[in-house]
Amino acid sequence: MLIVQKFGGTSVGDLERIRNVARRVARYRDQGHDLVVVVSAMAGETDRLLSLAHEITPDPSPRELDMLVATGEQVTASLLAITLKALGYPARAFLAHQIPILTDALHTRARIQDIQPERLREALSRGEVAVVAGFQGMTEEGDITTLGRGGSDTTAVALAAALKADLCEIFTDVEGVYTADPRIVSRARKLEKISYEEMLELASAGAKVLDIRAVELAMVYKVPVHVRSTFSEAPGTIITEEDEEMEKVLVSGVTYNRNEARISLYGVPDQPGVAARIFGPIAERGILVDMIIQTGRPDGRADLTFTVPRTTLREAVRLVEEVARQIGAERVESAEDIAKVSIVGAGMRTHAGVAAKMFETLARHGINIQMISTSEIKVSCVIDEKFTELAVRALHEAFGLDRPPEEER
Amino acid sequence: MLIVQKFGGTSVGDLERIRNVARRVARYRDQGHDLVVVVSAMAGETDRLLSLAHEITPDPSPRELDMLVATGEQVTASLLAITLKALGYPARAFLAHQIPILTDALHTRARIQDIQPERLREALSRGEVAVVAGFQGMTEEGDITTLGRGGSDTTAVALAAALKADLCEIFTDVEGVYTADPRIVSRARKLEKISYEEMLELASAGAKVLDIRAVELAMVYKVPVHVRSTFSEAPGTIITEEDEEMEKVLVSGVTYNRNEARISLYGVPDQPGVAARIFGPIAERGILVDMIIQTGRPDGRADLTFTVPRTTLREAVRLVEEVARQIGAERVESAEDIAKVSIVGAGMRTHAGVAAKMFETLARHGINIQMISTSEIKVSCVIDEKFTELAVRALHEAFGLDRPPEEER
Repeated sequence: MLIVQKFGGTSVGDLERIRNVARRVARYRDQGHDLVVVVSAMAGETDRLLSLAHEITPDPSPRELDMLVATGEQVTASLLAITLKALGYPARAFLAHQIPILTDALHTRARIQDIQPERLREALSRGEVAVVAGFQGMTEEGDITTLGRGGSDTTAVALAAALKADLCEIFTDVEGVYTADPRIVSRARKLEKISYEEMLELASAGAKVLDIRAVELAMVYKVPVHVRSTFSEAPGTIITEEDEEMEKVLVSGVTYNRNEARISLYGVPDQPGVAARIFGPIAERGILVDMIIQTGRPDGRADLTFTVPRTTLREAVRLVEEVARQIGAERVESAEDIAKVSIVGAGMRTHAGVAAKMFETLARHGINIQMISTSEIKVSCVIDEKFTELAVRALHEAFGLDRPPEEER
Repeated sequence: MLIVQKFGGTSVGDLERIRNVARRVARYRDQGHDLVVVVSAMAGETDRLLSLAHEITPDPSPRELDMLVATGEQVTASLLAITLKALGYPARAFLAHQIPILTDALHTRARIQDIQPERLREALSRGEVAVVAGFQGMTEEGDITTLGRGGSDTTAVALAAALKADLCEIFTDVEGVYTADPRIVSRARKLEKISYEEMLELASAGAKVLDIRAVELAMVYKVPVHVRSTFSEAPGTIITEEDEEMEKVLVSGVTYNRNEARISLYGVPDQPGVAARIFGPIAERGILVDMIIQTGRPDGRADLTFTVPRTTLREAVRLVEEVARQIGAERVESAEDIAKVSIVGAGMRTHAGVAAKMFETLARHGINIQMISTSEIKVSCVIDEKFTELAVRALHEAFGLDRPPEEER
C-alpha cells in the first residue's frame, strides 16, 4: 500500500518522540508499505517563532512571516529523516518548494493549487521514505507560503490525493473522532467510521481533531483518512464515503464551539439592500459570519442576530454600529457568553424528528435556545455558554451515543 | 553605491541587536545606497541545531543536516526583513534557492558555482533592501547545501562579485584586522588597509576575522572588503589590492594557530612512491596536511614530520601507523602541544632578512623552532604551545608593529 502519514506537533515534540515516530514508520516499511510522512513543527515552535515576529511589530510582513515560521516544519522534517537513516531506513526530507507544492500567494493562509508528485514518486521507487515538511507551500514566484493553522493535515490529504495513495493516516494526540469531547462526556465513544460529510459538519461545528480544509479535500478526492493516536496502537476513526450502515445511524456525534460571539441589531428598517449594507463591511474585513437569524416585527422593522468569531467581536461591533447609525436602526447589542451546540448525523437525511428531539432535550434541562441553524445532516443551537457541558451531556445521552451502534440502532 | 553588507551571528544575536542592524542599514539607505544584506544565524543557533542532530546519531546524513542548519539563517533573514519593513524601509528576504546561489553537492562544505543575481537586481531597482540568508546554497537538483563555518562571509563576497558591488562590508564583533590578537598583545594596532594576499596568509595562518574562502573570492574578483565592527561607528580595515604604500611595510601582522598537531614518522626507508603511500590515505579522508618537513639521515633513511588539524590527529595517527608497518618505518610519534606562529607582510617580497630576524627573535627568548615553512609573504614557525603568547608579543615588538607605519617604515 501507498500510505501518507501525518504526525502533529505533539507527536514530534522532542527527539525521543521523533524517535518513536521513526520506529513506527519503520514498522510500516518492514510490512512493505510505501510511505510519505508529513510532519508539523515541534510543539510550541510555531508559537515561539510567531511571538519573535510580533515582538518586533504587531503587524509583521506576511511574506517574511511565512518564511520565518516555515522553518519549524523544516527542522522536524530534517530531524525525522536523519533519525530514519540512523535506524537504517533510507529516507529523504522534502520542503514544499522541492516537490513542489504550489499555492496561491495569500501568505499565512495560502491554498494549495497544484502538486507535482514526480520527485516523491522517484524517492518511493528508490525505496526511500519521503519525509515532507507540512504546513508550507510555494508560490509560482518561488516565495514560501504557509497554509494556516492545521495546515499540515491539508498537506497530508493533498499529497495523498496527488499520489492517489491508498490511505492517509493522521496521527495525533487523541485516539480518534468521538461521539463527544471526552473531557466533557466521560461516556463518549470513539467512532469506528464516519462519513466525510459528517466529519465536515463536526469540524465546522467546533470539533478540533482534523482541519476542515483537509476534510473538504479528502471528500473531493475520495481519500480515505484514518485519524488515530501516535501514542497507542489502537485503531482510530476511519473517515470515508457514506455507506448503508452509516445511514442507519441517526446521530454520530455532539459537538460544541465556544469561540463565537453574538451581535444583535434591533429595529432594522425594511428597505432593499439593507443586508448587504450590514454584512458588506464585515465581509470586507475578512470576518466570517456563521449563523444569521432575522425576525420580522409587527411595526415592519426587523431584528437581526448573527454570530462572528469571538476574537473579531470588537471590530465587528464597531462596523455594525456605524451602519446602524446610517440606516437608522434602533440599537446594537452583543454577547460573548454564548456557545454553539451541534448534533451531526448522516441518518438525519432520512429520519425526521431529530431536531425536535434536540430542542425537547434542551428544554427539559431548562436550557433556552437563542438561535438555531440546520443543514441536511446537522442541527446547531446557540445557548448560554454556562450550559455548554450540561447540553452536550444531555444530548449525548438522549441520542444514545454512549451505547455502541449495534445495541441502539 | 551598491554595497553588500554581512552581519555575523553576534551582530544579530537577539531582537534588540537585529533592530540595531536594521537602523544601521536604514542610515545607509537614507544616504542613497543600494543594499544587499547577508545575515548569519543568531549566535548559538547553528550549534543548537547541530547538537540536536548529533544527539540522534554521531553521523547524521549530510543532506538533511544542511536542510536543518540552514533554518538558522532563514530565521534571521526573515526577522531582519520584518524589522526593516516595520521601520518603513521596503525590504525582501531571500533564501539561497530563491536567488539562486548554486553550489556543488558537497553537503556541509559546498562551494559556490554560480549566482544569478537578476532577482536581487529587481528588488534593488524597486528600492528594496535585499536581505539574504547567508551560509546556504542550492544544488542543481534543488537540494539545500551549506558552505561550512564562516560561510556567510563567502556568501557576501560572492554576491558582491556577482553584482559587481562597489564594496563588501563585513560587520563583526571586532574592530578590524589587527597586527596581532589584541587579547594577547595589548599594543596591537588596527590596520587601516591590507592586501588580499596578506589577508589570505593571515587567515590561513590562523587569524579568524574573515573566512579564508571569502578572501580568495575577493582577491579573484577584486572585491574591496571592509571589515568593521557592528557595535561601533569607527572605520575598520580595508582589504584591497596591493599598492605601493603597502609594499613598503615589511610585516603587517603576527598571528598564531593552536589548532594543529604534529605527527613524526622516523626511519622511513628511501624508496620511490613512499610519500604518496603516506599522504594518500590521509588525503582520502579529507584531512588537510599543513606543513611537511623531511630530513635525510646518514643511514639513507629519512625522518618525516608534518602537521594536521588537531581534531583529526587520532585518525591521522592510525592511518600513518598502518602505513609505517607496511613500509617498514621505525616508529610514529605525535604531539598536540604545538603552536604555529606566523609573520605576514607584502614587503617580504622585496626585503631580505625578515625570516632571519624572526628566528633570531625567537632564539633570544629561548624558544625552540620545531618546523619552519615560508611563502612569498609569510614565515611560519612551529613551536612549543606554551610559548605562544611570548612568541607573538616578542615578534610584534621586534617588527615594530605597535608603532604606526609612518614612524617606522
